[in-house]
Amino acid sequence: MAKSKVSKSVSFGTPPGVLVGDWFKGHRELYDRGVHRAYGQGISGTARDGVDSIVLSGGYVDDVYGDEEITYTGEGGRDRMTGHLFDDQTMDSPGNAGLLLDEALGHPVRVIRGLNIKGGKRRRATGGYEYCGLFRVADHWMTVGKEGFRVCQFKLVKLVPGEVPKPKPVSPNDDQDTDFENQVRRTVERERRVRDSAVVREVKELYKDTCQICRKRLVVSPAGEAYSEAAHIQAMGKPHNGPDKVWNVLCLCPNCHALFDRGALQLTDDLNVIDGLTQKFMRALHRAETHAIKVECVRLHRARWAGRLVE
Amino acid sequence: MAKSKVSKSVSFGTPPGVLVGDWFKGHRELYDRGVHRAYGQGISGTARDGVDSIVLSGGYVDDVYGDEEITYTGEGGRDRMTGHLFDDQTMDSPGNAGLLLDEALGHPVRVIRGLNIKGGKRRRATGGYEYCGLFRVADHWMTVGKEGFRVCQFKLVKLVPGEVPKPKPVSPNDDQDTDFENQVRRTVERERRVRDSAVVREVKELYKDTCQICRKRLVVSPAGEAYSEAAHIQAMGKPHNGPDKVWNVLCLCPNCHALFDRGALQLTDDLNVIDGLTQKFMRALHRAETHAIKVECVRLHRARWAGRLVE
Repeated sequence: MAKSKVSKSVSFGTPPGVLVGDWFKGHRELYDRGVHRAYGQGISGTARDGVDSIVLSGGYVDDVYGDEEITYTGEGGRDRMTGHLFDDQTMDSPGNAGLLLDEALGHPVRVIRGLNIKGGKRRRATGGYEYCGLFRVADHWMTVGKEGFRVCQFKLVKLVPGEVPKPKPVSPNDDQDTDFENQVRRTVERERRVRDSAVVREVKELYKDTCQICRKRLVVSPAGEAYSEAAHIQAMGKPHNGPDKVWNVLCLCPNCHALFDRGALQLTDDLNVIDGLTQKFMRALHRAETHAIKVECVRLHRARWAGRLVE
Repeated sequence: MAKSKVSKSVSFGTPPGVLVGDWFKGHRELYDRGVHRAYGQGISGTARDGVDSIVLSGGYVDDVYGDEEITYTGEGGRDRMTGHLFDDQTMDSPGNAGLLLDEALGHPVRVIRGLNIKGGKRRRATGGYEYCGLFRVADHWMTVGKEGFRVCQFKLVKLVPGEVPKPKPVSPNDDQDTDFENQVRRTVERERRVRDSAVVREVKELYKDTCQICRKRLVVSPAGEAYSEAAHIQAMGKPHNGPDKVWNVLCLCPNCHALFDRGALQLTDDLNVIDGLTQKFMRALHRAETHAIKVECVRLHRARWAGRLVE
């Protein structure tokens, strides 16, 4: 969906002339009055400048909206058509990283609530929007949400009149950098590495999360979404340095992944699955026609376990 | 095995009067001449001071011993009786952390080679020991070894005469601390958190790595060792803050763990396993008599997924 690129200058605090409890017909009015300047989107802001406002539209089943305290699920991993989560969220998206920066630097966030939210799947506010005032980002965490995927959540607490949020550390304990902005940058950077690569997403999508070895598909959500893992045939990282390429990646269930990564399952040159401990044939690898696999990778994987049966 | 506590002062470099190629009858002679002052052990040194010498005895199937370059597997996870790995190694043991410190600070390591190594399981050097000279720790990594468990490995490179090893960064890219000793401390600290807790090890041991839900046991090594995972019923970390106690932990296979952590498998108060999406009975949880499970934890786990079937 192409969006016109508007320079969104982030501007914290309640705009002049706006009062808590004010009603707005739609996103156009929110935009014009400077209450929420991300037309049609839930989060206004950037990773660099922070988030200045959010709209609560009931899009996430894990959200809890109180008057004084809000549990807010960040952005990402959601299918625009169905509204369902189909992938893990990470802290490295602009909105999530921006909220983390707000927590670190003590930026206030404008909260707008959608009224009379309708629509089973893709919810919309049919009763307009109410401005609820300024909140601080009091905490954040990652957890598995009701839909079976990892979500980034934030605790927002309403500011009492005159209160100015305090900066605070947001990083794991081992990061003793006292520059809170640096801490955010590192946390987001770490998340970026946690996130699935485009290659991994492509292979999982190709098999619709069905295991290429045992054909299991682990359904984790009421919408039928499933959990799978991507296994690099030639392992990434030192000392194997396998490439993150489609021809080096399999879509596996966690059990087959654990066995494959430990050499208890291996592949032959012609892509049959063998028991790595007995070298006995088990079954043919399930493979999509478009999914070529490099025989060198398969050989290097087998070579890692060569010689262990000597004893 | 109780060992007398000897103050092991770490002392780098070749001791006076010792030459490369010198032969030693046993650990006693190595100790007396100051070549290897960790009697009967493979690694001499500490996490604080570094490692000053190692003995190569062929104990690890993943080791590669060259004249100029050695791939050395660190310590930990090995059964003293059988010699087999039965658990992952971590960088936070004294010997492994010490070798990491050597790499960071540029300490030279004395390498001693066991000669005529015998014994299928618990190998011993029956031909005495040879002093091979000083090496630098050139690199380190974690990988899965031939026995199916995670091992810490080090690349050692022989020093040319007169060479002094240079200090170098040992930390992931996101750690921009220029104090290399601090980098080691953080890396080791991070590893400590990766390591299984005593509680986790106890529960895995209780079920011999057999899944309490599906009864699968994933054998990953020729010795019959298996891979399992510990699932905290009430999840650890924010916002659930479940305790790391035996009564809050299950031994599961990775598949059942993935489903349980996403609410697709749940437990009833009387410890039956139900399909979390349909709420239908599946089977009784396999449970050792001595393993009490707190019903509060089971309820809090179920409560996380309550309400997701509304749509």
